[in-house]
Amino acid sequence: MSAPKKVVLAYSGGLDTSIILKWLQTEYGCEVVTFTADLGQGEELEPARKKAELLGIKPENIHIEDVREEFVRDFVFPMFRANAVYEGLYLLGTSIARPLISKRLVEIAAECGADAVAHGATGKGNDQVRFELSAYALNPDIKVIAPWREWDLSSRTKLLAFAEENQIPIAKDKRGEAPFSVDANLLHTSSEGKVLEDPAVEAPDYVYQRTVHPEDAPETPEFVEITYAKGDPVALNGKDLTPAEMLTALNELGGKHGVGRLDLVEGRFVGMKSRGIYETPGGTIMLEAHRGIESITLDRGAAHLKDEIMPKYAELIYNGFWYSPEREMLQALIDESQKFVNGTVRVKLYKGAVTTVGRWSDDSLYSEEHVTFEDDQGAYDQKDAAGFIKINALRLRLLAMRNKRKS
Amino acid sequence: MSAPKKVVLAYSGGLDTSIILKWLQTEYGCEVVTFTADLGQGEELEPARKKAELLGIKPENIHIEDVREEFVRDFVFPMFRANAVYEGLYLLGTSIARPLISKRLVEIAAECGADAVAHGATGKGNDQVRFELSAYALNPDIKVIAPWREWDLSSRTKLLAFAEENQIPIAKDKRGEAPFSVDANLLHTSSEGKVLEDPAVEAPDYVYQRTVHPEDAPETPEFVEITYAKGDPVALNGKDLTPAEMLTALNELGGKHGVGRLDLVEGRFVGMKSRGIYETPGGTIMLEAHRGIESITLDRGAAHLKDEIMPKYAELIYNGFWYSPEREMLQALIDESQKFVNGTVRVKLYKGAVTTVGRWSDDSLYSEEHVTFEDDQGAYDQKDAAGFIKINALRLRLLAMRNKRKS
Amino acid sequence: MSAPKKVVLAYSGGLDTSIILKWLQTEYGCEVVTFTADLGQGEELEPARKKAELLGIKPENIHIEDVREEFVRDFVFPMFRANAVYEGLYLLGTSIARPLISKRLVEIAAECGADAVAHGATGKGNDQVRFELSAYALNPDIKVIAPWREWDLSSRTKLLAFAEENQIPIAKDKRGEAPFSVDANLLHTSSEGKVLEDPAVEAPDYVYQRTVHPEDAPETPEFVEITYAKGDPVALNGKDLTPAEMLTALNELGGKHGVGRLDLVEGRFVGMKSRGIYETPGGTIMLEAHRGIESITLDRGAAHLKDEIMPKYAELIYNGFWYSPEREMLQALIDESQKFVNGTVRVKLYKGAVTTVGRWSDDSLYSEEHVTFEDDQGAYDQKDAAGFIKINALRLRLLAMRNKRKS
Amino acid sequence: MSAPKKVVLAYSGGLDTSIILKWLQTEYGCEVVTFTADLGQGEELEPARKKAELLGIKPENIHIEDVREEFVRDFVFPMFRANAVYEGLYLLGTSIARPLISKRLVEIAAECGADAVAHGATGKGNDQVRFELSAYALNPDIKVIAPWREWDLSSRTKLLAFAEENQIPIAKDKRGEAPFSVDANLLHTSSEGKVLEDPAVEAPDYVYQRTVHPEDAPETPEFVEITYAKGDPVALNGKDLTPAEMLTALNELGGKHGVGRLDLVEGRFVGMKSRGIYETPGGTIMLEAHRGIESITLDRGAAHLKDEIMPKYAELIYNGFWYSPEREMLQALIDESQKFVNGTVRVKLYKGAVTTVGRWSDDSLYSEEHVTFEDDQGAYDQKDAAGFIKINALRLRLLAMRNKRKS
Repeated sequence: MSAPKKVVLAYSGGLDTSIILKWLQTEYGCEVVTFTADLGQGEELEPARKKAELLGIKPENIHIEDVREEFVRDFVFPMFRANAVYEGLYLLGTSIARPLISKRLVEIAAECGADAVAHGATGKGNDQVRFELSAYALNPDIKVIAPWREWDLSSRTKLLAFAEENQIPIAKDKRGEAPFSVDANLLHTSSEGKVLEDPAVEAPDYVYQRTVHPEDAPETPEFVEITYAKGDPVALNGKDLTPAEMLTALNELGGKHGVGRLDLVEGRFVGMKSRGIYETPGGTIMLEAHRGIESITLDRGAAHLKDEIMPKYAELIYNGFWYSPEREMLQALIDESQKFVNGTVRVKLYKGAVTTVGRWSDDSLYSEEHVTFEDDQGAYDQKDAAGFIKINALRLRLLAMRNKRKS
Repeated sequence: MSAPKKVVLAYSGGLDTSIILKWLQTEYGCEVVTFTADLGQGEELEPARKKAELLGIKPENIHIEDVREEFVRDFVFPMFRANAVYEGLYLLGTSIARPLISKRLVEIAAECGADAVAHGATGKGNDQVRFELSAYALNPDIKVIAPWREWDLSSRTKLLAFAEENQIPIAKDKRGEAPFSVDANLLHTSSEGKVLEDPAVEAPDYVYQRTVHPEDAPETPEFVEITYAKGDPVALNGKDLTPAEMLTALNELGGKHGVGRLDLVEGRFVGMKSRGIYETPGGTIMLEAHRGIESITLDRGAAHLKDEIMPKYAELIYNGFWYSPEREMLQALIDESQKFVNGTVRVKLYKGAVTTVGRWSDDSLYSEEHVTFEDDQGAYDQKDAAGFIKINALRLRLLAMRNKRKS
Repeated sequence: MSAPKKVVLAYSGGLDTSIILKWLQTEYGCEVVTFTADLGQGEELEPARKKAELLGIKPENIHIEDVREEFVRDFVFPMFRANAVYEGLYLLGTSIARPLISKRLVEIAAECGADAVAHGATGKGNDQVRFELSAYALNPDIKVIAPWREWDLSSRTKLLAFAEENQIPIAKDKRGEAPFSVDANLLHTSSEGKVLEDPAVEAPDYVYQRTVHPEDAPETPEFVEITYAKGDPVALNGKDLTPAEMLTALNELGGKHGVGRLDLVEGRFVGMKSRGIYETPGGTIMLEAHRGIESITLDRGAAHLKDEIMPKYAELIYNGFWYSPEREMLQALIDESQKFVNGTVRVKLYKGAVTTVGRWSDDSLYSEEHVTFEDDQGAYDQKDAAGFIKINALRLRLLAMRNKRKS
Repeated sequence: MSAPKKVVLAYSGGLDTSIILKWLQTEYGCEVVTFTADLGQGEELEPARKKAELLGIKPENIHIEDVREEFVRDFVFPMFRANAVYEGLYLLGTSIARPLISKRLVEIAAECGADAVAHGATGKGNDQVRFELSAYALNPDIKVIAPWREWDLSSRTKLLAFAEENQIPIAKDKRGEAPFSVDANLLHTSSEGKVLEDPAVEAPDYVYQRTVHPEDAPETPEFVEITYAKGDPVALNGKDLTPAEMLTALNELGGKHGVGRLDLVEGRFVGMKSRGIYETPGGTIMLEAHRGIESITLDRGAAHLKDEIMPKYAELIYNGFWYSPEREMLQALIDESQKFVNGTVRVKLYKGAVTTVGRWSDDSLYSEEHVTFEDDQGAYDQKDAAGFIKINALRLRLLAMRNKRKS
């Protein structure tokens, strides 16, 4: 790879990406363009602009954007239509944000004539894969720079020394090492590393950042009604909300009731197992509610097919293949199924749990007429079941006849 | 089908199966053999013997058995190795008990020379299918009688009239209709019908029978440690337990903390949707804990394959195909994966929720050496990740080149 | 089911459906409307009109239609996009025609105010299921009459007696029983029953009807070029053809070279195994050619996903679930994959075999630059493969370390 | 990676691996141990011993083994139980041989105290992945050396110069470049590269090495009978054969009749597409015959499950994951299904095609009694089919009712 001339950097304004910024300038002598996105991580973005300017970035090279609506509408909601969970439990909160960041990096690179993009993910994790696969899928000729895989700043001491040498301001609380590492966006907060590295030991309380302890949650349950249209939540307690407003509101509700905590050991795409603490308050509510509305509006055949392909779909997102033909094919299948996933679900939030307690829809397939224990007026002929069973049993009986013959 | 001469009836001792018993005698003039199993449903069995005698069954034709250990060891545990859930949520508590009952019915029929078996499941539900497919799979020539599909006792009034005509004792509280219908065994209690038939309306409190309301559960969490060997739980807080003892103990713990309630609308095999209230306290703990121990002992490739085939496995059990070659093939796959699923999981029970907070194992695949944020002493070369990504990206880049060519 | 008043019958003009026509009139006293479709079965349709008139059907109640283009365009081609084969070998020639016939039966019923449809499939086969599931899926209130399951005309003698009693003309060659049963349409001819019932015995030559014996095929191979657009064949040797023209032309080519014969024992949806002789000359060429064009235009991830879902897709069509949400979801997935399946395939036809010998496309993903054994000018860095392998191996090495620890 | 001290090299005796041998000695100054396996590639092995001695390998460091029986019994046959084909067509002839070679390399390394293994596969292909994943899975600490990824002998000229400098004898016909590259073993011969690099151009005749041109095959078909036990072929025309004898005999038969040629563009694991010419005469016969015997002995549920998981199984083998938990899990599933796959298949070989014409078995599930068009004496009640269809249709009717409501 020839040296990059102009690099678009995913820049948070924090110490690490500031060091990367400076390192790119010094190592490659290249022009650096910064991209800072508001994905709902809960931090102000203007300080990032100040800091970029301080590090010598030209104003026209500083890009700061609020992408929360796009994030929820085009990434989070499509994923939740699938009821996607990775390894049975993880709601993919980090995984789903990476493709959007790469998309903007590549687009900004095209707009400003940059030949490379850079990110601050390490060489051990999944995020490097997600950033880079997305970038290459969107521009086959882009260069990708991952300083953590390249430089020799392998210890905290070296990093701080580099920062000091290069006049990068270091916040007082960054002098010592953080006891764990955090990623956050509108969908979730994840924490991992250091104090969390022994999976036998319970995560300490101070790790959790956007959910209260279930023990500290209100003593009284709260009930909320979520209305769906074509598989997406569109109204909360009867009030229409945009995608980002919806997720924000559900996060607040979930966080207040301690909903959405997860302590997980997962298998990374790069082959090792890692332990993460995830908080996904709104997402956890959405998963439950979406299953609730599907339970009355989605046909059994459709629902089971969705369940069968879901693990693969989740794995693709986890592994960074959002922009792949197979993810798009699965999305087409999923979206096809959601045409009638309309209606309202009532859920209860209490002490860390979210449970569906009611659901209704104009498009319901639930037929009290058919299922009733009472007289069904001929809607269903129980004698049909005898034939149904006999025919289903035929191949099993032929097998049993063989067993009999053999014994 | 020619008329049966001797029938083995799955007999609970309750009013409905007593009516069936009498109806078989009068309708077919056949000899009736009763089979009453203790599956952990929490009822005494001796009254069933008394009642059968009262209805004229010869003592040698009355079979009463405690099958709890067999039930948990040979049916529940193998199923939980798969993390089986139907439609994302249902732990298959009723489904998994039916094959065992059919197996004993068929075995007793062989022993006593009966040519038919009979059950009390209706023509609208899944249980008829499960009973009958199992029976046919075990004996291709067996006759199966399902009185609910045959007789004309289609209303409560007619049933009670038949009972009175035939001197079948009717408990006072059975005069009126039960507000819902119940099935129970060591794994779960299910309730459905009548007051539960409108899925929009929250299930009333009195439906729940083996779990306390989360709101009434203890204010203090309880932590328990479950030890696994080859995928099955074998010790609780360090004490070895048999399979049925284990499930009994976990039921008590779960029930006390309000764990394992589920309000579900599900797609029945016979084509309609129905709503059920399920309580699976011990099973819910086992699902969480099993996922927990697998998370450190099961390889990613193995785990993902298990996740992909799980919906099909669960569907087979739900639909009554326990005794089918494909269920046995999937079981072989699942069991093959569990050889190293050994170790201990620490879970927290609190107000309706069970969460894993720690897990450890001599067979752990988790390598702190590899995953650490600290210096890993060369266990993992971050530069390898660059090649890994480039090669994974190649096909995406070739696609992107095509897109570029086309535009 | 109340008696039908007006029935639309799938009518071939042959003896069997003529008997059904008369039986419907006499058994139910209902008005009969006939529907005779040209699906490319190779028989003239006007005799069916004559015969219907003779049996007293009013001219306005006789519907004769050429649906060949619709059949190929909307049923055959979408199915071939999936490379669908049932049980590894069967190209679903009969299965795919049934939904279209049912669709027209139901549509004609709506137009003419009929409350029922009827078909001539027996109670042992798959076709009854396919006809009826399609009909119910398109009109939930339609009545379906399957005389073969209802009447007592269970032997050839009784059928002929009924025909004679009712003045139904019997062609001389129908007096004796046909040595096997045939279904045909533009996609295939299937033969089964009677002389074919012992699967150990080779099918006699006279069973084959639209393909020459490979031994009698030309001594010289023939090469043809098939051009695809979005996964469908659109031109043959450079000449644009409509869907039905294409299949007709390929049938002729395949038939001449003995291509597309299959002697299969298959598992029917109704539980038994049956043996069929299938001739699918054009379809066999299309399967090979479609795989050929996909091999250069379809990404590996997309292709493998298609292969994984194909057996389920084929099973759905075989079982009669064309009009089901899950088939439509899978079709959405498949169609999404075919956007760039454009280009030309050159195949060789010789003595029963069709083989791809060349393929090219403007949308090819094949990159000689990358794959070449020669110097690739840096398109691919072989060192990347080392990292790719090391990271893929990591989980296997962690497993091996555990094995080592244990031994 | 520290420098290797003693390396076990997969050594063919050819020019390329001789150069590697010398390069290992000169580059690393390490002791080289050679392993030359007879996998049925059709070359004498003793010349390899001579050449190794000539290059200075100590006699005790030269390992030459006939592993043909192990290859077929433990690798080829298990794979054929699955009916494994990659991308619809490729019989995995190269893929399946690599794990065995790696296994022996690692075993010999353990025996002789070597710390590394080496192979002659390039950095662009799949074989490097297969060799190395297998090696790491069997010994997590082994070093793997892939000279083609490391050295700078990137052109033919440089290679020959290196050979001359190092006194490596060069056969006359190796001076010029081979027009394509070949791999062979008892299962197949594959050819790729150079003259085959344009997938639009038909492969020239001289590429094919173990099958005659179909045009040159005998004018008369040949019929053979293959007997299976538990899914493996054990007798040919009534004569018991060992695994390697069986494959050898079938190769001869297939080769004589031009059976088993394949011209394929496939998606490599390393991301590019490549074109290969494969000849798998015996394997092609085995695939057809195995499907034939399964068609009468394997239950539909078992067969369809096998078909669904097959693409994943084939992909795992293709990608080099033979020694992975998920391949072993799938194998357990497959093997579980083969217990009754016993019986005999009669196939016809003619001009490049192999077709099943008869099959019989004591374990057949085919029931003429059930399937017959004649009177079946009550084995099957056609009226059962009505109920079967009605119940299967119920969910489709509920969907249709919703559609009606909405329109």
